Amino acid sequence: MAVRVGVIGGGQLARMMIAPAVEIGLDLRVLAEQDGMSAQLAASAVGDYRDVDTVRAFARDVDVITFDHEHVPQDVLRALVADGVAVHPGPDALQYAQDKLVMRAGLAALGVPQPDWAPVHDEAELQAFLDDHGGRAVVKTPRGGYDGKGVRVVASATEAADWFADTAAGEPLLVEELVSFTRELAQQVARRPSGEIVAYPVVETVQRDGVCAEVIAPAPGASERLAEVAEQIGRRIAEGLGVTGMLAVELFETDDERILVNELAMRPHNSGHWSQDGAVTGQFEQHLRAVADLPLGQAVPRAPWSVMVNILGGPAEGGLEDRFGSAMAEHPEAKIHTYGKAPRPGRKVGHVNVSGDDLDEAVYVARAAAAFFD
Amino acid sequence: MAVRVGVIGGGQLARMMIAPAVEIGLDLRVLAEQDGMSAQLAASAVGDYRDVDTVRAFARDVDVITFDHEHVPQDVLRALVADGVAVHPGPDALQYAQDKLVMRAGLAALGVPQPDWAPVHDEAELQAFLDDHGGRAVVKTPRGGYDGKGVRVVASATEAADWFADTAAGEPLLVEELVSFTRELAQQVARRPSGEIVAYPVVETVQRDGVCAEVIAPAPGASERLAEVAEQIGRRIAEGLGVTGMLAVELFETDDERILVNELAMRPHNSGHWSQDGAVTGQFEQHLRAVADLPLGQAVPRAPWSVMVNILGGPAEGGLEDRFGSAMAEHPEAKIHTYGKAPRPGRKVGHVNVSGDDLDEAVYVARAAAAFFD
Repeated sequence: MAVRVGVIGGGQLARMMIAPAVEIGLDLRVLAEQDGMSAQLAASAVGDYRDVDTVRAFARDVDVITFDHEHVPQDVLRALVADGVAVHPGPDALQYAQDKLVMRAGLAALGVPQPDWAPVHDEAELQAFLDDHGGRAVVKTPRGGYDGKGVRVVASATEAADWFADTAAGEPLLVEELVSFTRELAQQVARRPSGEIVAYPVVETVQRDGVCAEVIAPAPGASERLAEVAEQIGRRIAEGLGVTGMLAVELFETDDERILVNELAMRPHNSGHWSQDGAVTGQFEQHLRAVADLPLGQAVPRAPWSVMVNILGGPAEGGLEDRFGSAMAEHPEAKIHTYGKAPRPGRKVGHVNVSGDDLDEAVYVARAAAAFFD
Repeated sequence: MAVRVGVIGGGQLARMMIAPAVEIGLDLRVLAEQDGMSAQLAASAVGDYRDVDTVRAFARDVDVITFDHEHVPQDVLRALVADGVAVHPGPDALQYAQDKLVMRAGLAALGVPQPDWAPVHDEAELQAFLDDHGGRAVVKTPRGGYDGKGVRVVASATEAADWFADTAAGEPLLVEELVSFTRELAQQVARRPSGEIVAYPVVETVQRDGVCAEVIAPAPGASERLAEVAEQIGRRIAEGLGVTGMLAVELFETDDERILVNELAMRPHNSGHWSQDGAVTGQFEQHLRAVADLPLGQAVPRAPWSVMVNILGGPAEGGLEDRFGSAMAEHPEAKIHTYGKAPRPGRKVGHVNVSGDDLDEAVYVARAAAAFFD
């Protein structure tokens, strides 16, 4: 019987697991937040992922549970584990992706390079950190942030007053050194419960307004040394934190040629969408293989360069499908991926992948094809 | 709203349309012959494709009708067209894939090179053909044959006596010259209703017991001239017969360096499975784009060589999924595709694609990975 993989969350990451699941013969089932979500085709249940009974009922009919996002509460995850359900990544690993303070402490214990950081309980503690770090720093809410939300650059402790007022008594915020970086990178690795790890090449990511806009794989101009260091960081985190499935490590490359860990994601990640068309094994197939504890696939590129450009927002009028004709006619080499979501300013509604021998050409085509959906 | 593509037939070809349909945002709906077929995930209806009311009801909720196979009767197809339904390929084209005598006459009218052939109404006519062609020939039932069924090499007219007895009064059999060929090739093209055509590189196909066993893309040692001739044959047939969607032209390469048309298929075809992983646009995405009258994608290879090996029969005990672990562990570069079908001797239950720079290596890996499923 086909292995039944249950995915909690019906967004685009679950949607993009459908294609490889069909091809390699896994029985994918999705617990969607509501009807009509991106992963609708594979939705076998609709319900609240914060409700332990809902999640338990969903888990009863699958062989392994994995995720479209990292928001399933620890108590729900631990109830599944207590029931004997295989959960990948498990709650012990996921806590590092759910709480940025826990992540910083975990990475510190592993000796992984990261920005200076501290938990700050009040404005006085934050001001002290600012005074020690040149007067500017990044304040983050430890939980619930994504795509630039819950992140703020401040030059004065009063700029975080609203967040201190909002947080529960005794719950600190995270403050981090404002890193002077030349660019952002991302390192992805996949890890099976049995321990096998496969690393993708380190990629360059370009953010706009805190949201991933473009990815180039591999990172242009990356030295062998840089690629090795990034891969070792990815492997150390995956092993050290016990991550199963795909792990994405967002990295800063600094002016002084250091690499520092910015964020973690324990699931397929926007920085890996290029691999759907640009690598022998795409990240969605790899995630499924990893969580089903199947041997991992080759993570090597199929072409010298692959470029991913996000479709953000989508057309002001009509749907993405109204633009397929013109985008496909102009750019027959572009791989268009859509998420089945209604257009809305800033929303990730799709992306375009282009691979080739010439980086400038690939960047041009990917941007031009994506622009048809503006 | 997403374009709704209705596929009649729930086999593996419909199944393999699911992945690209999800990615490019088409709403795929399948009329399956029964529950639990390969394309189950997209099955929106179950019923008999020979029943005009069943097919009409299915067609009511889609924007275009296409096919997993060529067996939908002409009267059903023509009823849809009369209803104003977009049917691709349409009945006028499909008749050439449904009846081999009609095909031979159609190709003759186009001036496409093919073996000598004739309709034969009785043993006397067959014997006359045999006498004119060295005493051996290939007899075919005009309808219903596939994977070597309905095809017989005879040295005497009496060897077809049972088929003459079975055919309706006045219905001839097809007899063809027994071509002395060095190898078999296949040429695929995609054609939109609006006329755009894209050609894939000509490939070499290896049959065993009348069933496709392996495909190498592009055909090794094919001269530029051979590739051009094959492409021109594909284009001429697609245009001349008004084919929409994917067309596969099975070809003989003869001892005296001619190319002759063996068979036609108007749908994605086993000879094009390599393109799922080995071409910029796989044949299943291309078929969907063509029948939805969207601009066609690039049909160029992603790698110098791609090899497809069919998984025929599957394991004598257990399912394919029991062998995933060992196949994937030994061959992380292999792309395994499964059809969700129970193993049965000789049945096509999956295939393996491998691409790379070295042909011998790709052939070795694809065969070795497929062998894990024997």
